[in-house]
Amino acid sequence: MKGFYHLGDVATSGVERLVARALELRRGAQARRFPGRSLGLVFFDPSLRTQASMQRGAARLGLELVQLQGGAGGMWGLETQDGVVMDGANAEHIREAAAVLGRFVDVLAVRAFPKGKSLEQDFADPLLEGFRRYSGVGVINLESSLWHPCQALADWTTLDQYQVPRRGKLVLTWAYHPKPLPHAVPNSTLCMAAQRGMEVVVVHPPAFGLHARIQEHAQDLARASGGSVRFTSDREAAFAGADVVYAKSWGSMDAWGQAEREAALRAPYRDWQVTERWMARTPRAKFMHCLPVRRNVVVADEVLDGPRSIVIDEAENRLHAQTALLEELFASLENPTTPAGLSGPSAASPNAKSKEIYS
Amino acid sequence: MKGFYHLGDVATSGVERLVARALELRRGAQARRFPGRSLGLVFFDPSLRTQASMQRGAARLGLELVQLQGGAGGMWGLETQDGVVMDGANAEHIREAAAVLGRFVDVLAVRAFPKGKSLEQDFADPLLEGFRRYSGVGVINLESSLWHPCQALADWTTLDQYQVPRRGKLVLTWAYHPKPLPHAVPNSTLCMAAQRGMEVVVVHPPAFGLHARIQEHAQDLARASGGSVRFTSDREAAFAGADVVYAKSWGSMDAWGQAEREAALRAPYRDWQVTERWMARTPRAKFMHCLPVRRNVVVADEVLDGPRSIVIDEAENRLHAQTALLEELFASLENPTTPAGLSGPSAASPNAKSKEIYS
Amino acid sequence: MKGFYHLGDVATSGVERLVARALELRRGAQARRFPGRSLGLVFFDPSLRTQASMQRGAARLGLELVQLQGGAGGMWGLETQDGVVMDGANAEHIREAAAVLGRFVDVLAVRAFPKGKSLEQDFADPLLEGFRRYSGVGVINLESSLWHPCQALADWTTLDQYQVPRRGKLVLTWAYHPKPLPHAVPNSTLCMAAQRGMEVVVVHPPAFGLHARIQEHAQDLARASGGSVRFTSDREAAFAGADVVYAKSWGSMDAWGQAEREAALRAPYRDWQVTERWMARTPRAKFMHCLPVRRNVVVADEVLDGPRSIVIDEAENRLHAQTALLEELFASLENPTTPAGLSGPSAASPNAKSKEIYS
Repeated sequence: MKGFYHLGDVATSGVERLVARALELRRGAQARRFPGRSLGLVFFDPSLRTQASMQRGAARLGLELVQLQGGAGGMWGLETQDGVVMDGANAEHIREAAAVLGRFVDVLAVRAFPKGKSLEQDFADPLLEGFRRYSGVGVINLESSLWHPCQALADWTTLDQYQVPRRGKLVLTWAYHPKPLPHAVPNSTLCMAAQRGMEVVVVHPPAFGLHARIQEHAQDLARASGGSVRFTSDREAAFAGADVVYAKSWGSMDAWGQAEREAALRAPYRDWQVTERWMARTPRAKFMHCLPVRRNVVVADEVLDGPRSIVIDEAENRLHAQTALLEELFASLENPTTPAGLSGPSAASPNAKSKEIYS
Repeated sequence: MKGFYHLGDVATSGVERLVARALELRRGAQARRFPGRSLGLVFFDPSLRTQASMQRGAARLGLELVQLQGGAGGMWGLETQDGVVMDGANAEHIREAAAVLGRFVDVLAVRAFPKGKSLEQDFADPLLEGFRRYSGVGVINLESSLWHPCQALADWTTLDQYQVPRRGKLVLTWAYHPKPLPHAVPNSTLCMAAQRGMEVVVVHPPAFGLHARIQEHAQDLARASGGSVRFTSDREAAFAGADVVYAKSWGSMDAWGQAEREAALRAPYRDWQVTERWMARTPRAKFMHCLPVRRNVVVADEVLDGPRSIVIDEAENRLHAQTALLEELFASLENPTTPAGLSGPSAASPNAKSKEIYS
Repeated sequence: MKGFYHLGDVATSGVERLVARALELRRGAQARRFPGRSLGLVFFDPSLRTQASMQRGAARLGLELVQLQGGAGGMWGLETQDGVVMDGANAEHIREAAAVLGRFVDVLAVRAFPKGKSLEQDFADPLLEGFRRYSGVGVINLESSLWHPCQALADWTTLDQYQVPRRGKLVLTWAYHPKPLPHAVPNSTLCMAAQRGMEVVVVHPPAFGLHARIQEHAQDLARASGGSVRFTSDREAAFAGADVVYAKSWGSMDAWGQAEREAALRAPYRDWQVTERWMARTPRAKFMHCLPVRRNVVVADEVLDGPRSIVIDEAENRLHAQTALLEELFASLENPTTPAGLSGPSAASPNAKSKEIYS
């Protein structure tokens, strides 16, 4: 296992081993130490959970940490397009930045949100792709335009922790939010649950679907795992019998980069908030959200503070899941033979074909 | 001892033990190590001394450090009000942020200045209160709206280092500054000196008093210690016989959040600068300030660079005092029985009643 | 060796020892460990390579790291002028900031770019001078207005790695850039190559010379080493027979702080880009640049991605060179006798006389 870009690139047996290890770490197991090894943390965007859990996870393994922030006072602005005349705002090209950082550390972990201007550019995931292509080292995706695999791994861990059946029903519900948010979390939640073999229902207003290629990929994963994936706009029917209600807001691909049109598209759906009225339809369901979450917009206080909310355990599992992941990545550096059941990023992952999709 | 919010919450015997230990560390004692334990440093506001000394102090103890910055590129904006519909600028509520960070580290240290808009909100100290209430771990106050207890502990250490008598006279003098500064330092200096048993004189222009509840609390502390507290606007008389002149600027509560009115209130007092002319009234006094200090505004070069200024030792003692504090906090995690003479944050601290005061 | 301000302050035998050690570290040698020792990293300006390599280098030595950033959310703005009434934007004076940080760590490493307003102020290097004067500890220059000695040390390491002859020819060529950049890198490259004994040719448009005092200093270094230094505006002739083409852009001293005039001065030289056409004049030359570099502005993709570009190794050598430097600085703290061949910053360095130059 060299990097960790998308959970669906990892064989299910590998995911299961990581999740089992995460739960051991949660129960107090000691992490393996890798003295003299190093991890680079590169954040181009805000973070609370991811930063804190990666810093602590790295410390548990005794890693030497290199930390860089994008933006004013941090790194230079990075250009990702090839062949461009760099006389604009960006002072450095991803080719050099990635190659240099790859000389300084053993593994790089990178967060880079979409810019929210061009759907095509965002879904090509240029910064993560650049680091993977040019750094020469394994790259951990700490949330890119397309995927948030560490969240997905923590979520799977949380589902196992709460003994949610492998064939249980997970409802991923779109929620209202004042801003159009990226697709990384819904993409990863959908594919994680499909890979785990769950009955996945994604419920969203008509203009707020997920990308066709992601849907297709999720269907493939469900087919392989014995699960199922369904998309609907019927909120009334969707929640019945759910084991998990997973709330998340995301922007419309129909109005990517068009703030006013986006706002108009979402305006009618202010009532897409998870309240007790909705949770009442599914008495055994747990409530999950990746956080940060806007109270009384995405979810009502009554749900988030109620006994069915497991969001704090879910967040805590970020630490344990990532510690397990780092153990596996650094162990494979010591012994380069890839462990059975794990593989590098697969050529079958959807954005490997993103150029075809959008051209 | 679980957290450290306000020095006056700690029994005097406990403070004395911390100060004695700080002076041992200053003389080169080795700090106790706590392998596998972790400290979170959360800064919502600028810092030089506090950041640097906490980083070094944590390293001396072998702690695993998690570091987060508020503002652009750092953490999400945090909401502190309950029941609010979060459709504004803040993306996360303190309830989740604190609870999650409390899962990642053993102790949290937080700096959060007042917003300077509402006196009532600022004096309720919402961010620190939120971290204390929701994190589930001990919280160290690295300067909140109300208190700067690490500064107070370092100041007591400095007074002992320079053998200033326990019954000595400390003059806390307001000074001119182009901006209205928070009350945390004057509040903490006043209460520290009162708790130490000193004769405390606070001298300030009429509109620049400290909060009535803080004054009352300081009187209580002085009564218990055998010290005294007095407030005056008579600069001419105040300095005579002082052992310490402690300069600090702060804003007027009469014009909180009203920049123009505040500027008008302070305009007549540009000459409230500590110069040799003022220091001459008290030949044996040392000069103290928490830093950063504006030269030739708050204090003249001649005083700051003169032989009576002990501000650099005072700043160095931040490191030793905080190292002693961290030792005590982490030791009590190893052995949860609270050491004799120390207690958790007391219900009697003034802001415990802040809601009553302002409602 | 107490600090590291300018490579030319270090005796050539000392530089040779550092370079040899850097190459050993590059080949996998273990760095010496200094448990309990600490390094402060202070960045007032953006950084990728320098931050990452210093963090990793410090970790290799087991140093306790203190890290501070200037700008919003970081440190206070620092005043560097003496005697000033500090009622402006800067909240702290360098005298206190440096003295306090010097109490918290054993060695300080500082990056502070020129402000770009006053040539005289910038060339007096006020922030670095302040840290050196007031901190009481050794200071490593991580790029100041005048010098980038860590880059120069890494560059010398790279020249040795590629077995470029000590008497080889190095062409330092000015290149077009949309902004006027500081002189630290060209100053340091020029002096490094002169000290190494190379035939140095600096080629630049007429208005883009380097400072007379720097030129003079480079001549002195060349005289001592048996090298030579020449300045020309004749691009056609300059490249012939070069072993190294070192590209770099920098601003004109004739229009310091005058953006429009500067832009007009550089406008005619948009074709000062290193392309294959230019590299063709010198078939054996390697291409070097300190990075970040603007592709197809300063250098064409064809050169940067071609076989003669050694910029990534050059950047990697920042880590090894600085690790060697830190070893030497911390070793001399353990054993305060300065090692043979090394000395502290020399009074002969050009900016020691900067006040004379500009007054």
